[in-house]
Amino acid sequence: MDDVPGSMGTSASFSLRLGQTIFSSASLFFMALGVQFYSYTAFCYLVTIMGLAIPWSFTLTIVDGYSVLVKWPIRQPRILLIVIIGDWVLSILILAAACSAASVVDLLLHSDGSFCPLKVCRRYQVSAAMAFLSWFLSMASSLFNLWLLPSL
Amino acid sequence: MDDVPGSMGTSASFSLRLGQTIFSSASLFFMALGVQFYSYTAFCYLVTIMGLAIPWSFTLTIVDGYSVLVKWPIRQPRILLIVIIGDWVLSILILAAACSAASVVDLLLHSDGSFCPLKVCRRYQVSAAMAFLSWFLSMASSLFNLWLLPSL
Repeated sequence: MDDVPGSMGTSASFSLRLGQTIFSSASLFFMALGVQFYSYTAFCYLVTIMGLAIPWSFTLTIVDGYSVLVKWPIRQPRILLIVIIGDWVLSILILAAACSAASVVDLLLHSDGSFCPLKVCRRYQVSAAMAFLSWFLSMASSLFNLWLLPSL
Repeated sequence: MDDVPGSMGTSASFSLRLGQTIFSSASLFFMALGVQFYSYTAFCYLVTIMGLAIPWSFTLTIVDGYSVLVKWPIRQPRILLIVIIGDWVLSILILAAACSAASVVDLLLHSDGSFCPLKVCRRYQVSAAMAFLSWFLSMASSLFNLWLLPSL
């Protein structure tokens, strides 16, 4: 029952979750700000996945915040397993979305500029970068919790 | 020391590795057959990653085949850990490459056809699909070995 930093119910985990929520929201914001996103499949996919990731991260942020406040971390193996699998599936989906969006943006930037104005393209790029950061934090959460699991 | 099916040195693992080698090679083959691939970043990335994945899978196929033949599976935790981490990193890279290639192909297909003829585009699509299959098998190998690790 030793505390792995970053596992559920620690303040490090709270920071990770907060980061996920912020980066996912930023990614969605920058993507949805330009209303052209629905003409590209990859961008629609990114928006869909972020629509899944934000509630998930936000819920776990609140749970972690509460655990830190009352100093009573959740240590039920079954709940932890669900969180690990959820994080892991989400991180794969976010990675897929981020890669798709990034490659499409790259293609659009290297075309002759007829598809998207430079300003819009830069916004898409920021959105993809935010999605990559969100993927990284999500995977870190999953790994830290997986590390904790055998000791329960 | 019980045998987890799919972990290193079993015949299931040999099949997984063989599948990875075949799918990675097929992906590289279908991508490199059309010589236009180097005009798109995502396709170049796929070719690079497949160039990494094929030797890795092929080496492990041979190791597994030898282990099955002499009935003496490798069970050193350190070697297993290296294989797990290698598989895991490769599976992330392959997923990224497959998603990028798939989204770019999708974009090219939905443009007016001036970028790639339908026949070439279909070939790229097959290549991306093969990369996805290769990712799936690579991740399965990594998970099976991870499952075995704590029992060593």
